[in-house]
Amino acid sequence: MKRIRVVSVGLGPIGMAAARLALSKHSIEIVGAVDPDPQKVGQDLGTLLGQKECGIVVSPDASILYAEQKPDAILHCTSSFLTRVKDQLFQAVESGINVISSSEELLMPSHSQPDLAIELDRKAKETGVTVLGTGVNPGYAMDFLAIVASAVCFDLHGVRCTRVVDAGTRRLPLQQKVGAGLTVEEFKARQEGGGFGHIGMTESVALVGDTLGLKLDTIEQSLEAVLAEKEHVTEFLTVAPGRVAGIRNIGEGRRDGELIVRLDLTMAVGSDNPRDVVEILGEPPVRMQIDGGIPGDQATAAILVNSLHGVVEAGPGLKSVAEVPPPRIAR
Amino acid sequence: MKRIRVVSVGLGPIGMAAARLALSKHSIEIVGAVDPDPQKVGQDLGTLLGQKECGIVVSPDASILYAEQKPDAILHCTSSFLTRVKDQLFQAVESGINVISSSEELLMPSHSQPDLAIELDRKAKETGVTVLGTGVNPGYAMDFLAIVASAVCFDLHGVRCTRVVDAGTRRLPLQQKVGAGLTVEEFKARQEGGGFGHIGMTESVALVGDTLGLKLDTIEQSLEAVLAEKEHVTEFLTVAPGRVAGIRNIGEGRRDGELIVRLDLTMAVGSDNPRDVVEILGEPPVRMQIDGGIPGDQATAAILVNSLHGVVEAGPGLKSVAEVPPPRIAR
Repeated sequence: MKRIRVVSVGLGPIGMAAARLALSKHSIEIVGAVDPDPQKVGQDLGTLLGQKECGIVVSPDASILYAEQKPDAILHCTSSFLTRVKDQLFQAVESGINVISSSEELLMPSHSQPDLAIELDRKAKETGVTVLGTGVNPGYAMDFLAIVASAVCFDLHGVRCTRVVDAGTRRLPLQQKVGAGLTVEEFKARQEGGGFGHIGMTESVALVGDTLGLKLDTIEQSLEAVLAEKEHVTEFLTVAPGRVAGIRNIGEGRRDGELIVRLDLTMAVGSDNPRDVVEILGEPPVRMQIDGGIPGDQATAAILVNSLHGVVEAGPGLKSVAEVPPPRIAR
Repeated sequence: MKRIRVVSVGLGPIGMAAARLALSKHSIEIVGAVDPDPQKVGQDLGTLLGQKECGIVVSPDASILYAEQKPDAILHCTSSFLTRVKDQLFQAVESGINVISSSEELLMPSHSQPDLAIELDRKAKETGVTVLGTGVNPGYAMDFLAIVASAVCFDLHGVRCTRVVDAGTRRLPLQQKVGAGLTVEEFKARQEGGGFGHIGMTESVALVGDTLGLKLDTIEQSLEAVLAEKEHVTEFLTVAPGRVAGIRNIGEGRRDGELIVRLDLTMAVGSDNPRDVVEILGEPPVRMQIDGGIPGDQATAAILVNSLHGVVEAGPGLKSVAEVPPPRIAR
């Protein structure tokens, strides 16, 4: 079996988890790692991961690595936003390297930046590589699974997804990210500053709408605080009754005013019955549930690594998760 | 949008359902239909389907149609068995036409006929077409969904799928196929003659094992009668207590004697709690359930039609459902 040769680009929490997982796989060979952080540059990737040395030294410069190593793909985990990752993506594509990225906006870049999507697709076809944005959400729980569930239908007129995450069982940064423990006033002040929000919600709605031919004409989202009804104590913090337990983020896609796609995400400390539910309103109707819900950051790292084979096998261009062979555990 | 030009090959119940569905889709154009049955040859496909004429006359001869119409793909629904469909598959592939087939053994032809699989793959690559066997089971419920569920895992050591179909809500041929109403003696006599059995169970085990890198060394299946505990009355027949209500078919894949993959299928009149459940034994564990279960024959027709885009887009060769873009509703 030919191993997939990979450079890890971006060594934040997701990038580190993805690199750790990739290092454990026989079918994948990490041949380089890139991060601009001076604390990381020059260090051995294995050491950084708290493991034994692996002989891969973190470099600040992707271009030299790409030229020297000619990897099959990069595992790209630097930023959620297209404006920040754009140059990094083109650099890889122009070097003839497939891209798999955790950038949430790259799930469906035509949604926010149609010109960029066209240019990225054109360039990827020119150099014969595939570019894919994915993760657990967006990329799997509230979009890919709905697309896959539609396969058994003759007809389909709507999609409803519900994802409930008990943030209390997750790491501190997630609990902070959803505002757990804040007062309502603190939450509102931070919300006005743009400090909250699951990124990628509108991209998920757009991807579901586009892939399933639902011809949405408006896509909107709302975000509100979920308040604690009783005290919740996590490993890291305590949420008093009446304080913010987390967020509820709803994405809606409509056609002629009619609600067609509704994605309903709750991430809050103490959420009851964490789960992922996909409901297809169609013929036949389909209701798919994952008990307990899919874990977040860890699953994103898994999905990135488990999508590598699909990205390498797929034809060239900017692709969505619906357009490449499905992710499955890498070995 | 370029429409996918399709020839329907085989107009039994599944082929008819697939043709009816394909005719309703804007993205698909049926350009021919083939069946050897003298009762069908010369008839308009629309008339045969109980609809208005569609201008497609059923032909007994695929070769002329292939040469004249040069379709993008065939919807192939003639037989479960490779020995019977082999020549039909090569005929299409040699004509440069993509194949999507309901043949259960084609889900994983290397399982029963490795030489044929190699030859089919070689020829498909030579002529630049894709060959895919799929359906609801095998092809989706007890294999594809397990593969897709594995995507969120770091590690995985086993797969369990349970599919329970209430045959009492299905059409008469299915109730008969599972032996509903027979005595135990009648069931055993027919079983010895090879008259029962879901086809494709061992193929599903093999596909899951191979795709998820589980290195199975033995694959076996068992089939037994499910007996009615109380009377069941369906639209078509009555099953007295103690008589056969249906079948239970279990496929098991082992490595060094250890049970790794277990697919447990019950199709019986009066089955409680019909459902599809996929359980991934891994890190993290995953449990995915479809309430009520996925309907059978109708869903197979849907999945065939809904896989057309993936087969047309995929690179050439003999592919499995894990190697092409996932099925999703066609429009």
